[in-house]
Amino acid sequence: MLPSILLLFHLTLAGRGFATPAARAVEKVDLLVTGGTVVTMDGSWRILEDGAVAVRGDRIVAVGPGAQVLAQYRAGRTISARGKIVLPGLINTHNHAPMVLLRGIADDMALMEWLEQVIFPAEARNVDKEFVEWGTALACLEMIRSGTTTYCDMYYFEDQVAETTARAGMRGVLGETIIQFPAPDNKTYQDGLAYTERFLKRWKGNALITPAVAPHAPYTNSAESLRACKALADKYDVPMMLHVAETLDEARQIREKYGATSTQWLEKTGVLGPKVIFHHGVWLTEEDLAIIKKRGVGVTHNPESNMKLASGTAPVPRMLEIGIPVGLGTDGAVSNNNLDMFEAMDFAAKLHKLVSMRPTVLPARQVVAMGTLGGARVLHMDEEIGSLEGGKKADFVLVDADSAHAVPGYNVYSHLVYVLKGADVRTSVINGQVVMLNGRVLTLDEKAIKEKARHYHDRIVASLKR
Amino acid sequence: MLPSILLLFHLTLAGRGFATPAARAVEKVDLLVTGGTVVTMDGSWRILEDGAVAVRGDRIVAVGPGAQVLAQYRAGRTISARGKIVLPGLINTHNHAPMVLLRGIADDMALMEWLEQVIFPAEARNVDKEFVEWGTALACLEMIRSGTTTYCDMYYFEDQVAETTARAGMRGVLGETIIQFPAPDNKTYQDGLAYTERFLKRWKGNALITPAVAPHAPYTNSAESLRACKALADKYDVPMMLHVAETLDEARQIREKYGATSTQWLEKTGVLGPKVIFHHGVWLTEEDLAIIKKRGVGVTHNPESNMKLASGTAPVPRMLEIGIPVGLGTDGAVSNNNLDMFEAMDFAAKLHKLVSMRPTVLPARQVVAMGTLGGARVLHMDEEIGSLEGGKKADFVLVDADSAHAVPGYNVYSHLVYVLKGADVRTSVINGQVVMLNGRVLTLDEKAIKEKARHYHDRIVASLKR
Repeated sequence: MLPSILLLFHLTLAGRGFATPAARAVEKVDLLVTGGTVVTMDGSWRILEDGAVAVRGDRIVAVGPGAQVLAQYRAGRTISARGKIVLPGLINTHNHAPMVLLRGIADDMALMEWLEQVIFPAEARNVDKEFVEWGTALACLEMIRSGTTTYCDMYYFEDQVAETTARAGMRGVLGETIIQFPAPDNKTYQDGLAYTERFLKRWKGNALITPAVAPHAPYTNSAESLRACKALADKYDVPMMLHVAETLDEARQIREKYGATSTQWLEKTGVLGPKVIFHHGVWLTEEDLAIIKKRGVGVTHNPESNMKLASGTAPVPRMLEIGIPVGLGTDGAVSNNNLDMFEAMDFAAKLHKLVSMRPTVLPARQVVAMGTLGGARVLHMDEEIGSLEGGKKADFVLVDADSAHAVPGYNVYSHLVYVLKGADVRTSVINGQVVMLNGRVLTLDEKAIKEKARHYHDRIVASLKR
Repeated sequence: MLPSILLLFHLTLAGRGFATPAARAVEKVDLLVTGGTVVTMDGSWRILEDGAVAVRGDRIVAVGPGAQVLAQYRAGRTISARGKIVLPGLINTHNHAPMVLLRGIADDMALMEWLEQVIFPAEARNVDKEFVEWGTALACLEMIRSGTTTYCDMYYFEDQVAETTARAGMRGVLGETIIQFPAPDNKTYQDGLAYTERFLKRWKGNALITPAVAPHAPYTNSAESLRACKALADKYDVPMMLHVAETLDEARQIREKYGATSTQWLEKTGVLGPKVIFHHGVWLTEEDLAIIKKRGVGVTHNPESNMKLASGTAPVPRMLEIGIPVGLGTDGAVSNNNLDMFEAMDFAAKLHKLVSMRPTVLPARQVVAMGTLGGARVLHMDEEIGSLEGGKKADFVLVDADSAHAVPGYNVYSHLVYVLKGADVRTSVINGQVVMLNGRVLTLDEKAIKEKARHYHDRIVASLKR
């Protein structure tokens, strides 16, 4: 029994921050982040003032009080987080990344006019591999700058989205849009399915990219297409995402066609299951919620897009109440018009207070949870990301909490939701790699990307005059 | 007739940018701002690519195409606005500036609990002249940084608010809160009235400060107090501001007490008129709107505060439709929790689309108008500020439109509302004075103010433990 007693004594010392090289060998790690307010988002909502995070390779080795972690670990590289909040990287659960190149091209229009007169023609005349590469690079630049470390995407030429995302050092859950409508790359949904299978084979097992199957929506895919999608997702054990119950118009259309809600029809079609992700879920009935809960589906909430496009208000407090995983998203930059997840948190918190007429609804901590661990749950990655805990992937950001608009601060969750914005993020670590340091993105050529954005601006404007 | 013909020829040349020193003497001005996209917000919504603004003393001398303005004016100082938007300074029509020191001290609580358990005790134990001075300095720092040049305020120790605002070089419409409730400075409303009269005498005619009379609300002031306030405002010809129809609870209370809405009761009391400002105006009936319109009252809209406190949604599209002046505000930092007017614009645009279920409601240009000239109308200062036109006061800001989250840009109004934020503001000119240049505030000691903010944090936290 002696070794166990010694071990217990040793752990007690270590736990109290008394560990010394004599009591326990100092371990080497790759990176130590010290001196910040560490918001762990772990099961006990630990917040560590003057906390530290130790990283080895792509994983977090330890999170704890600074003195304790520093006594136990030595690293070649140390980043000071003094005056900053250390937060799990934000998870943007819904995006169409390359659409940043169309950011603000048309706003404040009726939905069909907007789509048919501007968005669809602009996409048809401009979207190709190069557009998607540069658009994704610009989106990754903006997302890294504003604190997002993982995002979920569906667009076209998704291979280029994946290549660029991996190069940027970001984590992505990515799917090629499958739609019964000629897309810029695949002209039929069968082509889309074939593309997707190649895509799944190529990216499955990648350290940063989780490939997914992405049928656009129930009103743009038949039962046959959706079943083929689900079969593919099951075959490769990957997520399947689709837009569901986004607008009243969709709800009416599906009811006329199938005599059911979108969710009920999807359930009847047999395509729901634990790796399915619903984008939006605005017009969900209580019966829909029961189905979603039963099938283990996750829902992405996009408050800014839903407000700007006048889509409606998703029943987020109710979903959280009954235990449905809910994450936050920005949607594409044509409907928001940026990719700042801090704004998504701010809008979510305020929107649901107003709609419910209860200021206690969605308190700040719950909103930060949606932006981090909740998003990870929706993407079925909560064992790997979404909180700062030993053993998880090293995905976190340092947020400046010491600027004129941020002092004084009384509650770190409240500040993250109501005060701080993407522009306050200074440093970002994804998969153990420092991708931004003190405001400088290290994985992308910012100047070249911005030049290309201006080039695309001119080209797109010209294309719409044709 | 010869001189007129020559003048016409001369003007024609000048109008086309052909003016030369020979054709017209070059005039000296103090400041030229060149190379930016000048968003004038004038009567014809002129936007000048590569435009210029010439400033002499505290006023704008000319706004026009760069070549034309440069041919006509020479200045000792030139600021380049290349890659930036030159915008009339934003006008925050509702604030309680010193409350930034309580930023985020309590959130997500039921209103009465929030006020009685936290806000009122924190104020009672901490608000004094020094608190107000440092709080105002911090608020001015944040407002200047985020593009506000004029703000409207009601708090306590308003003399200190005025002194600090003038020192910061900001424009303010400021009033001492008059309330039938012991305030941190004046213990009765009569004391408040006496304070206000001294305040009006002291500040009337100041270049930056417009003193005002500020009874808190109809539910915290009697008819007698309100009539005395109105008499004072009339005597000195200054604005009178008050909170009106902010919450359902107020509406119920006033109906029980007076059998009328707040607006109807104020009308019956005889205190409405063209220099009156209503803060919030959430629960206004169609009959109230008719009274407001008839009396020439302006209304401040505070979307973030109304959402966060679950107050309700003000009938903004309807007010604009019938021609009531509407400006935007942040409200105090305990109910928002920052003073960023770009966010106020973003929230306003999205909120009313959602509530009306029409994406065409409050298009971006109309929202920028609320944030600038609309605010000036509400404050009855639209002949002096709110747009960039020759003869108006030189109040404007330079906003970076070239960062990763802002490129490409297709529509400048859309960018100002949906994309850009306070953090994108780089330079600010108020009353002809450069108060911020390339991100550095020149009128305030940022380091000292932030240190004081941390000091107040500790003091306030300790005071609430007593």
